[in-house]
Amino acid sequence: MARWEGNARGRLERAALDLFSEQGYDRTTIAQIAQRANLTERSFYRWFADKREVLFGGGEDLEQVLVSAIHAVPADTAPLPTLLAAFTAAPEVLRPREFLRERSAVIAANPQLQERELSKLASLSESLTAALVQRGCDGQTARLIADVGMAVFRLTAERCMADEQADFAQTLSASAADLIAVTADSIPDGSGSSAAERS
Amino acid sequence: MARWEGNARGRLERAALDLFSEQGYDRTTIAQIAQRANLTERSFYRWFADKREVLFGGGEDLEQVLVSAIHAVPADTAPLPTLLAAFTAAPEVLRPREFLRERSAVIAANPQLQERELSKLASLSESLTAALVQRGCDGQTARLIADVGMAVFRLTAERCMADEQADFAQTLSASAADLIAVTADSIPDGSGSSAAERS
Repeated sequence: MARWEGNARGRLERAALDLFSEQGYDRTTIAQIAQRANLTERSFYRWFADKREVLFGGGEDLEQVLVSAIHAVPADTAPLPTLLAAFTAAPEVLRPREFLRERSAVIAANPQLQERELSKLASLSESLTAALVQRGCDGQTARLIADVGMAVFRLTAERCMADEQADFAQTLSASAADLIAVTADSIPDGSGSSAAERS
Repeated sequence: MARWEGNARGRLERAALDLFSEQGYDRTTIAQIAQRANLTERSFYRWFADKREVLFGGGEDLEQVLVSAIHAVPADTAPLPTLLAAFTAAPEVLRPREFLRERSAVIAANPQLQERELSKLASLSESLTAALVQRGCDGQTARLIADVGMAVFRLTAERCMADEQADFAQTLSASAADLIAVTADSIPDGSGSSAAERS
């Protein structure tokens, strides 16, 4: 889980997040982040295009890892199970819980960061969709599955952040079971209006 | 479906969208929009805070209609069927197909508009979550259901935009059936790692 910690990039992320939490995102400069990490501004820019990216670089790691993991799932696996299996690779690149919690708080306090987060999540969903399409899934179904999978992933991440002891793979299974349970509820008639037509 | 057409607000939306399509979003001014709609800039500002909002005002109508529709569903209905039943009220406020198609194209061409769209969709998802919580659903489940419901809604909207003849309620039923089908695929084991434990 600690691929990034201890290295320059991890130190910059940690320093930035601490400063954002202590004094606010807007009041923190890149010079301060570099100084706190015992690095130069130049090394900051080796890793991140701007201040905002220091909170979102992990998303690109996640995207790469999940897309590779999708392609590693046996070809005869149905698409949603493929995605759920791929999600078990996420802990390789997820930051530690307390980092993710602090990061969520910083983002929640800043509308521009919220927009960036939404835009990164949408881009992740598109990459997952594209990976499922490459495996032969039709586009509309792939998009539906990516969206549903992201909902399960988000619930899993939320539960893992809230519970120190939670194991990611087990929590993911529990969240997938919740998806199945809520969906099964709607089997008799989903639309509320066309039970008779559909019979 | 035409509650908004013919009135000042509808004329402004139509004029704005036509201008955005013809000459681009960035090159269009509020003065031009008002002129094209045979209205004053002052009346533009009665309806919209800024140029961007002219594309997103419909989202607030949708939010209000869906939240009211959720509360109108019989109390003993399970949450996902509640949401799907509420979605059948959407056509009351949805703009006509060709308007929605043009709107999508304008948004797709402009990253700032894309961010705004994502942010509006996230806010809609939060309102749906809150409405389900008010009806007694726990917060995490409500969020999962709202996210999954939004995925079904998006697929429905996409299909209705692509097919002139599509009926919204029937397309919604078909999309809900697709959700059930892809979810059922994952029943044997979702996580790829814990089939034995869950048995």
